[in-house]
Formats: sequence, C-alpha cells, structure tokens
Amino acid sequence: MHTLNEEKVFKDPVHNYIHVQHSTIWRLINTMEFQRLRRIRQLGTSYLTFHGAEHSRFSHSLGVYEITRRIISQFERSGYTDWPNSEKLLALCAALLHDLGHGPFSHSIEEAFHMDHEEWTRRIILGDTEVNAILTEVSVDFPAKVASVIAKDYVNPIVVNLVSSPLDADRMDYLLRDAYYTGVNYGTIDIDRILRMLRPYQGRIVVKESGMHAVEDYLMSRYQMYWQVYFHPVTRSSEIILRQIFRRAKELYQDHYSFNFMIEPLPGLFEDRLSVQDYLKLDEALIQTAFSQWATDKDPVLSELCCRFMHRRLYKYVEVESVDLEMIDEIRREFKRVGLNPEYDLEIDFPTDLPYDVFRPGDESSQKQILLLDREERLREISEVSDIVRSISGIHRGKYHLYYPGSKLKDVISSLPDSISHIFKR
Amino acid sequence: MHTLNEEKVFKDPVHNYIHVQHSTIWRLINTMEFQRLRRIRQLGTSYLTFHGAEHSRFSHSLGVYEITRRIISQFERSGYTDWPNSEKLLALCAALLHDLGHGPFSHSIEEAFHMDHEEWTRRIILGDTEVNAILTEVSVDFPAKVASVIAKDYVNPIVVNLVSSPLDADRMDYLLRDAYYTGVNYGTIDIDRILRMLRPYQGRIVVKESGMHAVEDYLMSRYQMYWQVYFHPVTRSSEIILRQIFRRAKELYQDHYSFNFMIEPLPGLFEDRLSVQDYLKLDEALIQTAFSQWATDKDPVLSELCCRFMHRRLYKYVEVESVDLEMIDEIRREFKRVGLNPEYDLEIDFPTDLPYDVFRPGDESSQKQILLLDREERLREISEVSDIVRSISGIHRGKYHLYYPGSKLKDVISSLPDSISHIFKR
Amino acid sequence: MHTLNEEKVFKDPVHNYIHVQHSTIWRLINTMEFQRLRRIRQLGTSYLTFHGAEHSRFSHSLGVYEITRRIISQFERSGYTDWPNSEKLLALCAALLHDLGHGPFSHSIEEAFHMDHEEWTRRIILGDTEVNAILTEVSVDFPAKVASVIAKDYVNPIVVNLVSSPLDADRMDYLLRDAYYTGVNYGTIDIDRILRMLRPYQGRIVVKESGMHAVEDYLMSRYQMYWQVYFHPVTRSSEIILRQIFRRAKELYQDHYSFNFMIEPLPGLFEDRLSVQDYLKLDEALIQTAFSQWATDKDPVLSELCCRFMHRRLYKYVEVESVDLEMIDEIRREFKRVGLNPEYDLEIDFPTDLPYDVFRPGDESSQKQILLLDREERLREISEVSDIVRSISGIHRGKYHLYYPGSKLKDVISSLPDSISHIFKR
Amino acid sequence: MHTLNEEKVFKDPVHNYIHVQHSTIWRLINTMEFQRLRRIRQLGTSYLTFHGAEHSRFSHSLGVYEITRRIISQFERSGYTDWPNSEKLLALCAALLHDLGHGPFSHSIEEAFHMDHEEWTRRIILGDTEVNAILTEVSVDFPAKVASVIAKDYVNPIVVNLVSSPLDADRMDYLLRDAYYTGVNYGTIDIDRILRMLRPYQGRIVVKESGMHAVEDYLMSRYQMYWQVYFHPVTRSSEIILRQIFRRAKELYQDHYSFNFMIEPLPGLFEDRLSVQDYLKLDEALIQTAFSQWATDKDPVLSELCCRFMHRRLYKYVEVESVDLEMIDEIRREFKRVGLNPEYDLEIDFPTDLPYDVFRPGDESSQKQILLLDREERLREISEVSDIVRSISGIHRGKYHLYYPGSKLKDVISSLPDSISHIFKR
Repeated sequence: MHTLNEEKVFKDPVHNYIHVQHSTIWRLINTMEFQRLRRIRQLGTSYLTFHGAEHSRFSHSLGVYEITRRIISQFERSGYTDWPNSEKLLALCAALLHDLGHGPFSHSIEEAFHMDHEEWTRRIILGDTEVNAILTEVSVDFPAKVASVIAKDYVNPIVVNLVSSPLDADRMDYLLRDAYYTGVNYGTIDIDRILRMLRPYQGRIVVKESGMHAVEDYLMSRYQMYWQVYFHPVTRSSEIILRQIFRRAKELYQDHYSFNFMIEPLPGLFEDRLSVQDYLKLDEALIQTAFSQWATDKDPVLSELCCRFMHRRLYKYVEVESVDLEMIDEIRREFKRVGLNPEYDLEIDFPTDLPYDVFRPGDESSQKQILLLDREERLREISEVSDIVRSISGIHRGKYHLYYPGSKLKDVISSLPDSISHIFKR
Repeated sequence: MHTLNEEKVFKDPVHNYIHVQHSTIWRLINTMEFQRLRRIRQLGTSYLTFHGAEHSRFSHSLGVYEITRRIISQFERSGYTDWPNSEKLLALCAALLHDLGHGPFSHSIEEAFHMDHEEWTRRIILGDTEVNAILTEVSVDFPAKVASVIAKDYVNPIVVNLVSSPLDADRMDYLLRDAYYTGVNYGTIDIDRILRMLRPYQGRIVVKESGMHAVEDYLMSRYQMYWQVYFHPVTRSSEIILRQIFRRAKELYQDHYSFNFMIEPLPGLFEDRLSVQDYLKLDEALIQTAFSQWATDKDPVLSELCCRFMHRRLYKYVEVESVDLEMIDEIRREFKRVGLNPEYDLEIDFPTDLPYDVFRPGDESSQKQILLLDREERLREISEVSDIVRSISGIHRGKYHLYYPGSKLKDVISSLPDSISHIFKR
Repeated sequence: MHTLNEEKVFKDPVHNYIHVQHSTIWRLINTMEFQRLRRIRQLGTSYLTFHGAEHSRFSHSLGVYEITRRIISQFERSGYTDWPNSEKLLALCAALLHDLGHGPFSHSIEEAFHMDHEEWTRRIILGDTEVNAILTEVSVDFPAKVASVIAKDYVNPIVVNLVSSPLDADRMDYLLRDAYYTGVNYGTIDIDRILRMLRPYQGRIVVKESGMHAVEDYLMSRYQMYWQVYFHPVTRSSEIILRQIFRRAKELYQDHYSFNFMIEPLPGLFEDRLSVQDYLKLDEALIQTAFSQWATDKDPVLSELCCRFMHRRLYKYVEVESVDLEMIDEIRREFKRVGLNPEYDLEIDFPTDLPYDVFRPGDESSQKQILLLDREERLREISEVSDIVRSISGIHRGKYHLYYPGSKLKDVISSLPDSISHIFKR
Repeated sequence: MHTLNEEKVFKDPVHNYIHVQHSTIWRLINTMEFQRLRRIRQLGTSYLTFHGAEHSRFSHSLGVYEITRRIISQFERSGYTDWPNSEKLLALCAALLHDLGHGPFSHSIEEAFHMDHEEWTRRIILGDTEVNAILTEVSVDFPAKVASVIAKDYVNPIVVNLVSSPLDADRMDYLLRDAYYTGVNYGTIDIDRILRMLRPYQGRIVVKESGMHAVEDYLMSRYQMYWQVYFHPVTRSSEIILRQIFRRAKELYQDHYSFNFMIEPLPGLFEDRLSVQDYLKLDEALIQTAFSQWATDKDPVLSELCCRFMHRRLYKYVEVESVDLEMIDEIRREFKRVGLNPEYDLEIDFPTDLPYDVFRPGDESSQKQILLLDREERLREISEVSDIVRSISGIHRGKYHLYYPGSKLKDVISSLPDSISHIFKR
C-alpha cells in the first residue's frame, strides 16, 4: 500500500475535511467510474421537495470513506487487538466504492427495470474498468475481496460489519449529509461521540454501553429523517411520475414506436442488455436530456409525463386510512368512464420503514443488530436495554396515499359519483 | 396583488425558510422557465474543486427573493417613508427573476459564444413564456418594468438600487450560499445585522453609520471568497477546458463535420440563431450529455477534451509572475515543434477582481457605491470612512497562470529547451 | 405603551438578535432586579459536568421574551382574531419576568430551605422594587396582572397558555440555549417551524396538524436533554453536596455556632425571615464567597463539603436497580461502624421525569396538553395522533444511584462486610 | 508520563470534545488552582455588552490545551523530525496552565493594582500548590520548565513558539470561543485548515505557503474581533467603573476608612502583600460580593460606583477626534464648578491595537512573526507576501472617547459653557 507523499484533502461541508493518505484511494477517486457519481444525485428526486438537496453520490461516497477512516483510526489509536489492521485498505476501498453501481434516480429506475445497484457495483468492480485496474494493482484477488465486502459475504465478518450494519458509516454519512443539504435539523447526530463508542469485539463492531444514549439519538434521528424527508409525499409523487415515464417509454419502445429522441444506451436499457460500458453512460444528465426532448414528443402520455417531471407539475395526493381493492377498482372504472386514464392517472402508495428492526432471527440478523458491550463484557442487543428503542421499534407507521393529476381530475370531478369525488375533495 | 390564503414556505439551508405570500411569486416559481434553473449550477464548474458546490441557480434565486423580501419588510416595519411600497411586488419579481437567462456553465458559454445572460433574461421575461403571462396579469406593462429593473434603467432608481448594488440581495445570498455549499467559512456574514442597517434615503439604499463594521466584514468576506473559491486555479482549469470544448465543437460544426451526437438546440447555438424556446432547452443536462457522447467521437481533440471534462482530467498549471508575448510565442513554437498542439495545449489566465471599486466616477458609479448615513444625516462613501475598505480597495491581486495537459507535456518535456522546460518543472 | 424611537437589539448566540420595541421592556431589563439574574446560572451546578454551561438566567429570560415576541408577531401577521392583541405587553412582561424570583443554585436551595421561586417572583413584582414601579406606570393593576399570568391564574387563559404550556417559550428557549452552551446537540429543534405552526384557537394556543412532526421532534429532544444533561449523575452529585452544605450550615447556625464568615442575608435565610430586599442580595457570587470562606472553617463537616464543592471533589456514585429500606439501614449502620458519617457520607437519588405527561385529568391538565388542530377544525391531544409520543410517554425511566465520598470509602472498604462492599466495588 | 487507562473527554461547544490522555493533565485539571479559573470570566466585563459572554478562563484553558494537543498530534502523524517529541507533556502543561494566574476582571484589576498575571502564574506553579505537587512528580525541575515556557524564556525555543506566537493555540481558542459565546460571527476561522498548515521547522513553528489565505482570514477575524468585541465602548465603560471602584476603595482603605464589608484577602490586595494562598481566594464571586455589599456603604462615591457596576448603570460616552490637555483641563475645571467630581465623572480612553505587528526588530520580534515556508524551503514573513496583511498592518485605528455619568451631567449641562456642553450634546 503506497502512502501519498503528502496527505490530500477535500473540503467537505459535513466533515470539514476528507483526508486521503493512500495513493490507491486517491487514484480510485480519479477514475471515470467514480467521477460519474457526480452525475447521480444522492437523494434522487428529493430536490423537487427540498430544493437544497442537490448533492451527489460522489459527495456521499467520500463521506462514507472518511467516516470509515476515522473509525479505523480510532481503533488503531485505542490499540484494540480485535481489529485486523491488515484489512484497513480493503475496508476503505469498500466504503468508498459501495455506491458505485447506483444508476440515475436509483430507486425509481430499479423498480421500473428490475435492476439492482449492488449487482452493478459488483460488475463495475470486477469488469474491465479503471477501478478494477487500480484495485488489481494491490493484488490480483483484491477486486473480488472488495466486491465481497460490499456483497456482505467476505470471509472476515468484522470488515463486513464495519461497512454494513445498522450503525455503519453509510447511514451515518447520509443522515448528516441529507440533513445538511435539505436544511432540516432532524439528522444532526453527535457522530464524534458515536465513533468514540464503537469498538471491535469478537469479530464484530459493538458499542460501549456508555454510548447507548448517543445511539438512541441516532435511531430517533433516522426515524425522523425517514418520515420527514425520505418518505415525503411530494417526493413520492415525483418518483411515481418518474416510474410512469419509464413504464410508458418501455411500452412504446416494445411497440417499435419512433421516439423524437433515442440514443444509446437507452435501447439497451429497454431491452435489458446493458454492458458495463453502457451502464456507465447512464447518468441523470442523460435521463433529463431524454425527458426534456420527450416533453415535445408526439405521444401525449409520454410528453405530458415528461413535462410534469421537468417543470415540476407533480401529482396531487390524498391520504386515506386504508385501501381496499374493490374501492380501487371502482375508482379506476369511474376514472375511465369520465375520460381519465386509470393506468396513469391513479397511483396508490404505501411507504413503510422500521427505524430499527429488532426481532429478525438467524444469521442475517446478527449483522443487523446493534450490540452494547457493558463493563462486565456482556453483549446485549440495544432494544433489550433501551426503552426508547423498544418503543419506536414497534411502530408501524405510514398511511396510504392516492396520487392523481390535480387539474385533470378537477375538470371532471363533478361527473364522478359522490362516493368517489369526496375522497379527492379534501 | 393577490395574497395567498396561506403563506407558503420552502425549507432552505441558508435562510431556514423562504416565505412566499403573493400568488404571483408562487406562480412564477412554478413556471417551466424558473424550474429550468434547477438544471443550471450556481457556481458552474466549481463542483470539480469543491465537491459540495452542487447547488443550482434555482436555490440561489429563491434566496435572493427572500433577502429582498426581508429588506422590504424591515423598511415597512420601520415606517421609512422613502421606500415606495407600491413597488414592492416589482422589486420581489425582479429579485426572483434576475438570473432567469443564465445558460449552462454560464461564464464559459458566454465567453465562448459571446452571449449575454442579462439579454436572455430580458427576452424570456418579454417573450412568449409562462413567466411573461403571469407578469402580464399584474398589468400590461409589468413585464417591461421587471425587465427594466433588472436592466438597471427603471425610472425609479431606488428599486434598481435595492436589486443591484454592491450590497444587494444577490451578492449577500451568493456569499452565504456558496460558503455553505463549498464548506468554506469565509462567507459567513452577519446578514441580519446588515439588513437592519439598510435604509431607503433620498432615492437610494444607504447604510446607517453604525453598520460600518458589518459592511467591512462583508467586503472582506467577499474578497476572501473571490480568491479562495471563485478564482480557484483548479476551477479556472475546468473552465478553460469547457471553453476549448465549445471552441472545438464550433470549429468542427462550421467545417460541416459529422458529430456522433448533435441535437437541437446545439446547431442553433453554433449558428447563433437561438430562439427563446431553443434557449430554454439549453441546460447543463444537455451539455453534459453532449460531452458524454462526444467523449467517444472520432475527432481526437474533441474527444480528449470531453473526456477531460467528464472524468475530471484537468489541466495542470504553473504560476508565473509576469507574461510577455515573446515568451508565449516561443513556448507555442516549441510546443508545436515537439508535437503538442499550441492552440489547445497552452492557455494563459489572469484572474482579477477588486473587492470594492471605489473611484469610478459618473452616474453609473453612484449605483456602485456604498454610502453611509451618519447621525447628522450626512452621506459618505464607505472608503472615506473605513481604513480597511480603503486598504483592500487598492489591492490589485492575481497572478498569471499557464495551463497545460500534464502528462502530455511530461512525455515531451525533455525535448524542450531548458528555458521553457524549467517553467513547467516546478 | 410607549414605543422606543429606535428598536434596541441584544446580540444573542441562540436567537441571533433579541429585539426590544417597547420602552417598558427596555426599562425592565435595566432594573437592578432583572440585572441580578446575571448572577444566577441557568443550569445551577451543571457547569461542573458541562464546563460550557456557564450561562445565566438573564440570557435565558431575554430568550423567553424574544420567542414570545416572535409568536405574537406571527399571530399578528397571520391576522388570527382569537389572539387578544391588547394583552401583548402583558404577555411580553410575564415572559421576561417569569424567572425573576430564582435564587442561587435554585433547585438545591429551594429543596434545602423549602423556598419557592414562583412565590418570590410574585413578591418581587408586587413589592417595593424598580420592576414594580415600571409596571405600575402602565397601569395600577398591571403588576398584579403580570404576577397573575406567571402564577397561571390570570383571567384570560390564552395569555397564561402562551407563557406556560408544554410548548411554551420558556421550554423552547431552554432546550435551545442549554444545548448551545453545553455543546450537546440533542436540543436542536426547528423552532421557526414550531412557531409557524402555533395558532390561537378558542382561548388557547394549539398546533396545526401539519406541525405534528416538529412537535414530536421537540418532545424527543426534551426527553434526551433530560437524561443527558439535566439528570446527569455528576450534576446530581454536585447538587447533593450543595444541599448538604446548606443543611450543615443551618444545623450549625441553629446551634449558635460561630462561623468564620457570616453576613446578611445569610442569617435571614437560616431563620426563614428574608425580606424582598434581603432576597435580592442572594446571588451565586455571595453563596460561592461564603463557601470559599467556609472551606477553611473549623467545623470539619462544613469545611470538607465546601472544599468538595469549590474544588469539584464530587461524590462518586453507583447505580443500583432497586433500593430497599432494610438495605439502606444496614449500609448506614455499617458505615457508622467503620467511622463514616451516614448522615453525610451516603445519599440515595432517584431522578424521574416524563417527557410529556398525557393522562392527567381535570382543569390543570388542559393547560398541560398539546392539542393539534386538523383541517376540519377538530382538536386532538397529540398522543392520540402520534405513535412516537404515545410510546415515549409511557416510559418511566431512571435508576437509583447511591452517592458517597470515594476516597473516604476506599480507606475503609475492606472493613465492610462483603454484602455491602460489593455494591461499591464496581 | 502515565497514560490514562481510558481517554477522558470533556464535551466542549467549540472543539466538540477535549481529549485527555495523560494522567498528569487529568490531575492538573482537578486541582483547586485550576478549578478556580471557573470563577474568572474569560472576557471580564464583556458580558455587560454581550450577555452571552459568560464563559470562564477554565473553558478557555481547556481549549488552548486541546488545540496544542491537536497541533502536536498532527506533527507526530506527519513525522516531522524538527519537533522534539520529548517536550510534548511540557508543551501541553504550559498550554493548560498559561492563564493560571489571572485575577478577577483581570485587565482592570491589574491596571488598578499594578499586578501582573504572568508573574502570578509563575508563583502559583512554583509555590506550595497542588499544581506544583503534580508537576514535581514528573520531575523535580518540571515546574520550573513549565513556568519557563510560559515566561517565554525556555531553553528550547520551539516549545515557546508553539505556546506563544501570533498564531498560537491561545489566540486561536479565544477567537473561536469569544465568537461562539458572544454570538458574533467575526471570529469563525478555519482552524482545521490552519492546524494542517503548521509545521515545525528549524526551531520554530512556521506556516506552509499554501496556508497563506487561511492565515489572512485569521488575522482579519482577529482585527474585527478587536474592534467589535474587545474594544467595544460599552465594555470600556464598565472597565472604567471597575477601575474607579478599585481606586476609591484603595483610597478609603489607606485613609483607614471603616467599610461595611471587608474580608481577607481584600486588605492584602490594598496593601500589596498578597501571598499565593491569598491570591487564590481572589475570584469574581468575592469581588462581586464586596461590590454588592459596598453598594449600600455610606461613602457616596463608593456606593454609587458599586451600584453602577452591579446594576449596569454604565457611563455614557462621546467620541472625539482628538484630545488636548488644555481642553481636558478646562472640562475638569468646569465640571468642578458645577458640582461634578472631575476625579470620577470624566475619563478619557484611547483604545489601540495593531492586528499584526510587523516591523518590530530584534530577537523578541522573531517570536512575533508569522513565517511562511514555500516549496523551495524559503522562509518569508507573511506581510512580505500578503497584500492584505500589509494593508491592515498599517492601520492605526481608534478614537478617543470621553466617559461620564449621563444623568448627572444632564442635570447641570445648562450651566456649562457652550464650548463644553456641545461636546456632550450629540
């Protein structure tokens, strides 16, 4: 592992400075695959709700690297022997590259095309790429090891645990960063305190008992961020439109429709035959350019949806306590009767998340637990000890929302039966 | 002027909340022309130096509006009769829309194609646009008034002065916002204090004498931001590459070259015949998509430059105390001799700025002055009163930089005469 | 009500600026009674745990005034008719003066001498004081009205509700201020959001339903601050020593002991015959001066306790799951046997707090509820609507702690029976 | 040097955490002499101008220690051989203890009684104190070494340079801390950047050339803090009253006056015969208690001054361009004629500071320079390189202020000749 002659730093609004000491890290950052992450927003369409949230996965990935570096550095300073220092570069590379395979508007495009960013991360790391070449210089099997850590099946579980766990560097960076860029203050956690409280212990990363309150605060912050930011109904509205665009374009493509704009790698995307090189060309600039062109395409469904997305004419929504299929069927029928398109003019959404999943059994679960280590060296799962974690763990929150085009519905609402129109009239 | 039933707010990391009370403002924000500003970065290529600086002119424009709103609100609360309250909506619209005509990577594209964003702002406001329609609803001559305030020739100079002056809402927002997103802390000014110190007085906005130190601090912040952020040599390097791409593409276009990617409105851009509708399609998504495609174009100059920009392979630079034409000519000759392309492989740059221009005479200048109003109601130009402003006003800073492709030069540097190679060897 | 010619401001680290517009407020701040609050720390002995927490009730009181001013200002701007604007100055005065009667190290001295700061606030407002004179200038019955609002029995309940409720300006300021000065970030709430969500409604202050998440966040912050800061066991240790000093000094005084330092109003304090003028001389400077002198008094108990407090030689503590009287009796017996003083060398502490008390019935309770107002103008208590509030409301937390002099116990611990020594050996 | 089993931390609002790794540091913090610094405010009477500035020298001293620790830690990580690591504990102790000898309201009491806090620091370190005992355990000559570093005459100049220089930990902490607690934002410097730029070089601490802008920003911040906070005329007013109280009390004491309150060590202070033990009893609690008692003393001058200080009835002031002795003499004469007391009712003040003294020659000066180290290992004084530093270095700012009791003067101003009354009438 080559040390840089002089430490390099990146000025970062969240961590103040990102410190790079190894030439491998420095060179990975300068690859075209990593630079591409500048063109993938960290929070997808959230910028349409929180205009400040224009930050990229590039910034986030540097942040995850930096937190991982600080955790390991703390382990070294504290002289913990349970941490295998030979794995340091591996952990840092995995932290830096863990999001490498994210596509444009990641969650929506994955849903629409059944893609999996983790699989793409693996392919980029193992494929014929600049990242692969640099990792291979460390050792021939190093790319596979990095991919394995990210895939959570690396032979040394503590490395996996460091990079992927309920208290990992990924979650800590995104809480802090998303709070910073949106401007909400729910995500302000005492990261220095949490880092100080982590320690390697018998093959995994645990938390010293005195850090319990800091962890509680972190879980509550995460809980609030989910409901205030990540699941914000306006953001969901834009995601729904995005998925509808992808759906409509794919339908048209499969019908051999002649688009006013169609360049590679879009056909590859629609035909599910993207190579790594194709995939790397997929970024949010390309997607937005396509939408911008399609906004004047002759297909009215496609052009309307693209206008909606580009000019932020989002769907309105109403909250409903529950949803039954009969009701939905009836709404669709009536929508059709009055000239709306039930395929596109009605969407049902039910967001859900548990701030901290406690009771999952089995092997997988052990990676998902937060364990506290007390002075007598006993390990206890945090929800056993913390009333507040136990309390919020049980909450299943989330309401159904119906999304629809506001003004189109308004034009016809008087023709709908009262039983339906009253749902949308609030 | 229609008041909204309920004030709307935008969560903003810099001002906490942006408050919208008039339906005209609300509807302007929701136009496609204003939404387009989400796809124009506030700081152009600075994100390649400061990775956090990914914020858009959309966010900035909301910020300028909000500061203007707060200034006027303070004038109203204080009961200053010198402020014409009938002009409030006009001032707010001008503040919100002042950047409407910015193109992608604004400074570079303007230099490359001799465009002028202020002229485009005017055309969009007066043209057949959604913005124009909404402004016209206020009154038939309202679009022209808004354009006139932005063009600084509106009949009521205090409105112009509020929107454009050395202490205007535009500068205050960008100092704060650029500092926030880059993460540097040079731009942290006490904006509440400055706002409290502004007052309308005899047809212009002046500063109460007790606000002198706050203004000094603001000017020093601005000075630091210019040198630390806006003129950062790495950012200049990326701007040079950007201009070279535009230059090369235009050359090729004029030679009827067949690009691997060419869609409207790019031909219109190269032929200098953009309509307002064309111009509104020009955004950074489109430019990045073009560059991404051109990175594999067969023209080696174009493809290399586009790779450089997209993958952040920027030019290296050396600082030189002075530059003389003979030396430059010789470098170019020798570059050519060893196989480099002097048209593209060498650029000279001299950034300059005065933090506060003091001694400009004439009418124009009066809009560029910061006047202090003392208790005896005397007006004095700040540099008369402030030693620190006088001191920094006189500084002409800035060094020449030579930019060049690092590894290409390295390959041939041993073939260059010592007199030239030593310049680049530092 | 006289308006000041020019608004006065105080620079405040928490609210940026405190704005004073009425001469009555300005003059109240400048009274000797209000200035005395500079010599009473906001967080008592917490500075011995969090060294930054050296802020005074003076700062806090200005903050409570400022938040109240902003709430009312928002009510006025929104044109809410349920808020009686004639009560504005009354509400502002009550907010400013609500802590006027706090004594030095308030909680401890009140426990030791059965004093009540609310009663002293009333006496100061109604007594022969500068504050009373200024309030009387507003109207003869104005002092009584201010006292009545603070005592929560004012005839117009919405004024009481504004100043004292689970979401009042007092709590909001102390959460923010205590977080700022201690440096913990648990208390960072979105106060602007909360203020925007408050509205007067049918004789009380309620929260718009859309503010529910902001209120949840506030209650969770409060919960964390209680456990991380207010009930910190080190702070409790210093409070115990403080109470012991007061207890010992009173015992000695009642025994006609001759102290090495005894000045008025201390005798009045011990004899429970303090006049308002005496009480106003009681500040933390006086108490610390007394302790500093008594640290060399000849009574060994008093001098040791004063040394402990002044030089921060606090008691150690152990956490115990539960406490039974028999066990305590036995510990005391054994302590006595080995030469310790069970009256002073053992203290039992059980802190408790509910972050938000929900189920209290009756009139009193209605002032203690947080009511959400939904779009159909229905009022609902927050715990009916919020899972998270319901969850944390049920938590009864807190462990017993035994406090004792560490090194004194260490000297004799080997003489104690195992059943007792093991409690303290952890 | 004993390492603690587990690192101890203090939560700090400015540096987030203060890290203590050596038991010597831990034990020094717990001495009675160091704990006394909790009762000495960092900014003297500035809390009467900026109410938030209630922080103590205890907090500041921890901060100076922490910055020094971080600087040395950076030197170690960077492997700089010019830093003598054997001096680490010495540097840390000197940083922690450098303010140990400060008295209550330090600047004012030193002026009034010709005391010198540096001399008292030396006496406390070398005297029969807890601090001395702990330092002696390191080695017999260690107390003398610590005192020598603080006195700037230690044999190894780089240690002195680390602790005392224009860029030392002391100045960096106070800029940041005073800005934080007052709430002004002039003092926000990029301390991480500055620390990264420091390096030991040939017996002193220098700055890497690339840190020049960060140093410029630091010097400008310092400049602003001086004028906005440290030399604020309201603070000067309170300092003048403080000095007058000390002067009056000493006069009375020397006249064998019988005070209503007089306890040790005040007589020792007036007679200039304080022992170290006496001095350690002098804190701001004692001084405020004395003033509070004297506020009802029978001497009208003393009681009025004490009321002024305790209840913040400060002197008014006017700014005058220049002062000549004749004018002052005339004012004094006329003041006397109309019944004012020229000894106490008029004070002249001229604050001054140079943000960075450049041109001082000789040995002493070399410790006062900021040297930049460029890539060719040349050292240059910063003002040679930085236009902005050169510009502000030349500014001699500051105006004369006349301080006087506002209402007393108002009562008699009509009896004064116009030539004098007009000075005070503005």
